[in-house]
Amino acid sequence: MFHFSIKHIFKFTLTPSRFLVTHSVRAVHRQNNILHGKPIAERILNRCKNECEQFNEQYHRRPKLVAILVGGNESSKLYVRNKQRIAEHVGIAFQAINHLMHIAPSNLIDTINRLNNDGTVDGIIVQLPLPLHLVDKTENFIDAIRSDKDVDGHTTSNYNSYRHTSIPPITIPVVAVVREILLEINEPLQGKDVVIIGRSKYVGTPLALMLSQSMTDSKSSLISGATVTICHRDTHLNNLTWYCKNADIVISAVGRAKMVQHRMIKEGAVVIDVEVKRVARWITPVPGDMPSSEST
Amino acid sequence: MFHFSIKHIFKFTLTPSRFLVTHSVRAVHRQNNILHGKPIAERILNRCKNECEQFNEQYHRRPKLVAILVGGNESSKLYVRNKQRIAEHVGIAFQAINHLMHIAPSNLIDTINRLNNDGTVDGIIVQLPLPLHLVDKTENFIDAIRSDKDVDGHTTSNYNSYRHTSIPPITIPVVAVVREILLEINEPLQGKDVVIIGRSKYVGTPLALMLSQSMTDSKSSLISGATVTICHRDTHLNNLTWYCKNADIVISAVGRAKMVQHRMIKEGAVVIDVEVKRVARWITPVPGDMPSSEST
Repeated sequence: MFHFSIKHIFKFTLTPSRFLVTHSVRAVHRQNNILHGKPIAERILNRCKNECEQFNEQYHRRPKLVAILVGGNESSKLYVRNKQRIAEHVGIAFQAINHLMHIAPSNLIDTINRLNNDGTVDGIIVQLPLPLHLVDKTENFIDAIRSDKDVDGHTTSNYNSYRHTSIPPITIPVVAVVREILLEINEPLQGKDVVIIGRSKYVGTPLALMLSQSMTDSKSSLISGATVTICHRDTHLNNLTWYCKNADIVISAVGRAKMVQHRMIKEGAVVIDVEVKRVARWITPVPGDMPSSEST
Repeated sequence: MFHFSIKHIFKFTLTPSRFLVTHSVRAVHRQNNILHGKPIAERILNRCKNECEQFNEQYHRRPKLVAILVGGNESSKLYVRNKQRIAEHVGIAFQAINHLMHIAPSNLIDTINRLNNDGTVDGIIVQLPLPLHLVDKTENFIDAIRSDKDVDGHTTSNYNSYRHTSIPPITIPVVAVVREILLEINEPLQGKDVVIIGRSKYVGTPLALMLSQSMTDSKSSLISGATVTICHRDTHLNNLTWYCKNADIVISAVGRAKMVQHRMIKEGAVVIDVEVKRVARWITPVPGDMPSSEST
């Protein structure tokens, strides 16, 4: 089987171009078939570089991404540093805004609005999770981001766009990377059996909807038209195994490595392993580490 | 097995009360177990009557529902007449506004806005499908309805609400009726295997999301926590049978009667048959009759 492990994925979507950056897509060789992840990641990075150059030629400046960090969560700082490193690698200007832990909600909204109105800022990320006193309002802060600057694809309007089209203008980064991998595999999904493990709002659910929806054209036939089963922590292990053994593609999106065992997979099937810690942390906003099962 | 056939369902959601009306929920006796649909429908109708009375006591008027009909489609006229009959039966004032087939988009928006701003109008339905020259803008017209008057639950904000809560303020009527039936069956869904046949925007997809999501409380455990497989017209019949034979609950939402055969269902399983002609007609807006497979 193919086995991918996807980590530290993120996407820069800028007006008017679109930049998709994956930090690392590794392929693990399990049987006779290997699909190397690294070339996919490199091709995406090169596409980003080209798009940045075109942007530069057209607007005489580099596209700019701003990440807003609230408080001193070490994992969040690491994520932001990784984003900065890759952004600068492909030619995107990057700025991190560090707010103190105890910022008032209105001040955070002010920062977002200022960036919304700043014509030199093309993309805005609010790094999650937010501190406890803000976490209940997470959706409000996300929705305050202007949708064409919402590079994470988390605002309500962008989140809903995958319901209308297989290839929306801004896709949730993890979903976009799974799409890239499926395009690379280049086999029609129509009528194939797909198991998605995980029902999180920003990974499992949008993947299930994308892969099950009607095909609209030849390209979308590679990423839609599948019979999709959504498994999660309420699914008994026996049942999970039963579904997986039948599946042509298994996508594990539960923030838990090695959820899918080799014995659960039929020969020739594709396994895509999405480690979604950052997303998981939002869904169950406990400071510090949290049990990954909460996200499934 | 249980076998339900659901027809002509609609829901009146009024501020501040909520009215759910099913025209007909029939139970078909297949094996030893019968769950009668008629008492469910009658209980819902009685609940509506009570809520209308409370509304009347509080506001000194009956709640009012307005349906906008464009053109002379006979099925649409029939649907509107059915809605009127049941609305008046439970004590809701009903008005139908008939626009000529060739109405300009701006005039239709004007009608919707006038009803939005009319304090005596509590619910607005735009009867679908719209004529061909308007059909591309269907979502715009629907989204023009004030969300608290959107009794069909089709506006973007109401459509998305089931992503956040199992029991949102306004639910798509068909989804609400399936929920009523599952509450009646009164068996926890956690870990159960559910097959949804159909991936339409307003029936199959929201049902799949509702039934698969995390349980939040004891009541939601009756309508969420299931392992859900989404089947549709790209699913081979053999595979459909394979999934159905394993399922504890099969919900057919493809606008095709008797899609689910008795031999496909294991003993004791529940089959809920949702005839979604009206929704199907929106998805594939061909005037007159259309092949029902288009909606799956």
